[in-house]
Formats: sequence, C-alpha cells, structure tokens
Amino acid sequence: MASTKGKVIKCRAAVVWKVNTPYSIEEIEVAPPKAKEIRVKIIAAGVCRSDLSALVGLNKKVRFPAILGHEASGIVESVGSDITSVKEGDHVLASFVPQCNNCKFCKSPGTNLCVGFMKPPEGIGYMFDGTTRFSCKGKEVYQFIGCSTFTEYTVLDDGQFSKVRRDAPLEKISILSCGVTTGYGGPVNIAKVKPGSTCAVFGLGTVGLGAAMGCRVQGATRIIGVDVNNDKREIAKTFGVNEFCNPNDYDKPIQEVLKEITQGGCDYSFECIGSIKVVEAALDSVKLGTGTCVVIGVTPAGAKASIDPYQLLFGRVFTGCYLGGYRAQQVPGLVDDYMNKKIMVDEFITSTLHFTEVNKAFDMLKEGKTLKTVLTF
Amino acid sequence: MASTKGKVIKCRAAVVWKVNTPYSIEEIEVAPPKAKEIRVKIIAAGVCRSDLSALVGLNKKVRFPAILGHEASGIVESVGSDITSVKEGDHVLASFVPQCNNCKFCKSPGTNLCVGFMKPPEGIGYMFDGTTRFSCKGKEVYQFIGCSTFTEYTVLDDGQFSKVRRDAPLEKISILSCGVTTGYGGPVNIAKVKPGSTCAVFGLGTVGLGAAMGCRVQGATRIIGVDVNNDKREIAKTFGVNEFCNPNDYDKPIQEVLKEITQGGCDYSFECIGSIKVVEAALDSVKLGTGTCVVIGVTPAGAKASIDPYQLLFGRVFTGCYLGGYRAQQVPGLVDDYMNKKIMVDEFITSTLHFTEVNKAFDMLKEGKTLKTVLTF
Repeated sequence: MASTKGKVIKCRAAVVWKVNTPYSIEEIEVAPPKAKEIRVKIIAAGVCRSDLSALVGLNKKVRFPAILGHEASGIVESVGSDITSVKEGDHVLASFVPQCNNCKFCKSPGTNLCVGFMKPPEGIGYMFDGTTRFSCKGKEVYQFIGCSTFTEYTVLDDGQFSKVRRDAPLEKISILSCGVTTGYGGPVNIAKVKPGSTCAVFGLGTVGLGAAMGCRVQGATRIIGVDVNNDKREIAKTFGVNEFCNPNDYDKPIQEVLKEITQGGCDYSFECIGSIKVVEAALDSVKLGTGTCVVIGVTPAGAKASIDPYQLLFGRVFTGCYLGGYRAQQVPGLVDDYMNKKIMVDEFITSTLHFTEVNKAFDMLKEGKTLKTVLTF
Repeated sequence: MASTKGKVIKCRAAVVWKVNTPYSIEEIEVAPPKAKEIRVKIIAAGVCRSDLSALVGLNKKVRFPAILGHEASGIVESVGSDITSVKEGDHVLASFVPQCNNCKFCKSPGTNLCVGFMKPPEGIGYMFDGTTRFSCKGKEVYQFIGCSTFTEYTVLDDGQFSKVRRDAPLEKISILSCGVTTGYGGPVNIAKVKPGSTCAVFGLGTVGLGAAMGCRVQGATRIIGVDVNNDKREIAKTFGVNEFCNPNDYDKPIQEVLKEITQGGCDYSFECIGSIKVVEAALDSVKLGTGTCVVIGVTPAGAKASIDPYQLLFGRVFTGCYLGGYRAQQVPGLVDDYMNKKIMVDEFITSTLHFTEVNKAFDMLKEGKTLKTVLTF
C-alpha cells in the first residue's frame, strides 16, 4: 500500500454539523501533521458522557461542525518533523489532558494540569497552532479538546497522547484514555484511600466503577455504591462495590442514610456524576474530622454548590481531579497494571459497535442500559 | 489562708444576663468541682471575637445568663476525686476543644475533634454532666463552650484544659488557649505550608497574624496580608506579612488582584475572618492544580458559601480547622515553642485591662483599634 505520509487522507468520520443534531457519517479530509503533531489511525474509541454533554450543548466551549470523541486508542500513521517520542506504527492512547513538560503545571509535582489544558476559550476547536486539520465538503471542521476521535484518522498535538506497549489489546485499553482512569485515580492518586476504609461512590457508570475499583485496590473494606438505577447493583459487585444504596428507596437525604449506616460518615466519598446536588451530598456524607470528598464528575458550566464552611471547619477535605490526577505519560503504567491483572478493563466494556453506529451508541448511553460502549473502526 | 477546697467560692464574674446586653460585674457562687472536674483561679483571659459573637447573639447556641470567655490561663484551686493529670497549684490553659482520649475522634489520628465538642445542642450551657457550677442572686448561670473564663474562678471538665510549665508567664500564654493557636495551626498542622511558598492571609486580627506567623515558621517566602483596615499594615509586618492588600483599594475582586500579583494564584490561603464572601474569595485566590485554602474563621450559623465544583476539579484542596488542629494536650508544646523563642506571643497583646473593664475591652475590639486585649484578675 502506498504511504500516506505527507498527504491529505480522505476517510470517514462522525461529523456533528450543529449542536444537538445526530452524528453524520461523512467523508472528510485529514491534513498531514505539522512539525509538533502526529496523525493517528483510530482503532477503538470509547463513548463517554462528556461527548454527550458536548453534543447536546451542555459544554459551551465546543465549536461546530465538530468531530467529537476523546477516549481512544490508535496506531501512529505519520509524525511531524519535531516528534521524537513516537514513530510510525507505534501504539498510542489519546489524552484530553496534555502534558507539555515545560509549563508551570507540568513542572510542579502534585498536579496533572498543563497550560495547554487551560488555553483560552478562543483556542477551543483548534490545534495548539490555532488551525484545524479537518475539512468536509469544503468547510473547516473543528477539533474537540485536543482529541476528536470519532474518525478513522485524527491529528494530535505533541503531549496529547501516550505511547503504549504493542502487546496490549488496543480495543480494550482505549477506555484507559479517559473513563476508567478518571475514576480509578480519585481514590488512588488524590484521596490515597487507606486500607480498611469505608468509601461511598456516587454514580456507578464507568467513572464511578473505576473509582470503586480504585477503592478496592487501595484496600477499602466497605465500598458503598450509590445510584438511582437498580440495574447497577449487580454489575457494581464486579468492581468492588459491596453495598448498594438507591437514594429513591429512602425518605431522607442519601447523606443522612450514609451517615446512619456508617455511624457518623464515610472516610471517603467520590462524586462521579457531575450533579450539584450530589456534590453537596457527597461532601456531607464523609465523617467529621478526617473525611475526604473528591469531586470527579463534571458539573454543568457555571453551576454552584452551596457549602456550609462548618463542613470544612470540622476538618473535612474537599478536593477533586481531572483524569484521576494522571498525567498523559502515566497512563501507560495503567496499561501495565491491566496486563499484569492488577486492574480490570475488559469488564467495563458491555457493548462494541462499529463507529458508523455512533448514534445508536449514544442512544444506549442515554438509556443507561450499557456501561461502556467501544466503537471500532 | 483557709483552704477553699470542697466549699462554694464566692467571687466576682462578668455575667451577661441577656443576649446583647453589657457585661455586669456580679458576685457569684462557684460550686466545688465534681469527680471529673477541676476548679481554677483565672489569672488572665483573652478577649476574642467568638465571645463577641456569643454576646451579640450571632452564636445561637449560647444560653443566658452566661459567663462568657474561653481563652485563659489559671492556677488549679482544687480537683475532683477522679482527676490525676493535675493537682492544686498547677498551671493550666483552658481549652474549648475537649480531649477525652476515649472517643472515636480522640482515637483517630489526624483530627483534634472530640465527641465532647460535638455534644447535642441541649447540652449547651452545662458541664458534661448536664448541670452548671455557677449561680448568682439565686439563679443558675450557664457555662460557655466548656470554659467560662470571665470570672475569678471557673470549673472545667476533665479534658478541657492542659497543664503547662510553671515558668511560663500566665498572662502572656493565656492567648495560646485560643487565638494565636487557632491561626498558627492552619499553616503548620493543616496546610503544612512548604518552604518558599506564597500565602495569603485574609483578616489580620490575632488569628490571621497567628496564621501569618505559622506561614513564616514554615518558611513561606511571600506572605500577603489582606485586610480592609490600613492600620494593620504596620503591625502585620511583625508577624511575617511582607505584602499588604486592602481590598477597598481595588476596583476588582481581591481574588483577581491576588491571582494577578502572584501570576496565577497563591499556594495557600487562610480565611481568618468568618465571612462567607471572604471564604469564596480565599478559595478562588489559590492556584489551580495544587492550591490549598484553609477555612479558620467561624462563619455565621447556617450561612452557605457558593462554590463552583470546577474550583476543585482542577485540583484545589479546600479544608479547615478548629484551634489550628491542635488537641488540648498539644498546646503545652506551643508554650515550649514560645519559651524557646520559636513563636511570638507578647507581640500580639496590645492592651491589658482589669477584668472589671470588660465592656471597655469589647468596645475596643469592635472599634478594631487593638489586636489582642488580655483581661487580668
């Protein structure tokens, strides 16, 4: 097969022409990577609630027409002249959190932020250089949080991917690019859950069950899953949840229930939904003195939680994280953990569809009937 | 002099008969201590804003008539039959945070709470056994947060005091019983400020300047004091504040000013006022990724802060503490630090008045013309 290096690639992608309209499978053009970019053939892309938020307009920083998707694995098709970390044929995971290694955040231990992630809103929809590599029917198509993975080929800026071992199954590990990692890192990196602890996990999607798995790996004894969907009760056990609470089963607020059954509150709680009311409940669910609440879910832009500072005066810790606190270059370590059977990945994937069925995949997500759908290409 | 042990002592006290009325110097009766109590001759008592909140009714859990005051030093007059930690003549500091050494909090490292501090509201105004030792003109007079120190003699429950070395000047170290310690512990025990850090301290009263001193002891390089009272600029230097910001000097919110002058935010902030708006500003003043905000000031009961969970998702830590996170039995260590000149105490005391001038002392507090007034007996 003739090399595509340096040439525009024509391929198929799921384009969203306007906010809150279905994905449309189109032939697009993908320009070659610039000096500090790579072009990647996508192998598998997970379907995540953040893509849904972008699709329906809850995330105001998305520019349409757009190619969404941000949780994916792929194979490097070609690299720009300044790229030294990967070469053609290498396996990579996309990372919506960049790692430039040069900014004040990357140089600071204790955070996985990067100035690239904090770039001003006018930069949204573009590569770091302020242009896009996608076009369709003569029109520019915009990038999505540095990833745009619902396409056969995408272009990633340097730092927005990590190289992974070639013996790891790309279809499975695609979901380590966001969902599982985002949840898992909460108890492991941020709360550093202590053995024997009692943890509450609010929301038992991929992120929440990733958090539950993290609690179990850390040695938590009691892992209480909280979800309004009773279907989660069974599958949650797989990931370590050993008690299940449906808030709809009680007349009192769920935080009161949790404080009652734990004689005063949990050691840790993890908000994995992105709901203001749940953020408030999660903080109030942890014990006075030493309880830690970690916000993992992305709440609607501008929404505020109402917090009594007494909650903190009595010694609680209230914090949060993106991508579980992992830097892009730390994600390959989780691939190792998966290959070494320290963490589960396969068990999260409850559906696999071809990427041309992306609308069906999002319908399934909205219906809550699947845990994680992976799109294949 | 005949021993008073086992007898009712008649002495003078500053009684507040009704909420928001002046202190009235009265002759009161102080009953002998019960088995797990001690009776103390007060030597010096600091005037604290929490006493003012109680006096004017902002603290709803105060029962009148009351003897207020909670920051004090004294000499043990007599002890109950079960008391082994101190004896007659020992020097003690009162502690509004009890330490029973038996409850789930006392047995848990990482918190200075004690179930005695969390006792239900119906217990407010009494000793742990549900009675008071004070009476005046044939009426019961209620206790205040386990201390009641604006009196020549008081009775303290076991755990609500600490024994201190006899060579430490009681008049000076009285203020380690609350104010200085409350502020100092925020950076030292809770935030564990790292050398070279940038810190913002909101509110430059005794608590805030105690926090500034803690930042300096921890090795912070930049200590920014924030206060609307320009008179604080000079005195704050004594305690380590090397930059001063008056929010009234700017057209934009103080958190924007702080983010600007620190190129992105402080490493740590300490709220030492107890204002909801200041709590919100303090959280927003710390840098993304690694910033920590510690709430130290006591906000009005029931007031809620409005917090964007994104503030936490990007990695900030929001926490707080009472009495600087110190347990009662750790306060004598601070007396050692004072005697060893590691921390300052004398410099906080800007006025000394006889306790019969307590109304004048509170007028001075309201006027903001003094840092710390100590009442002597």
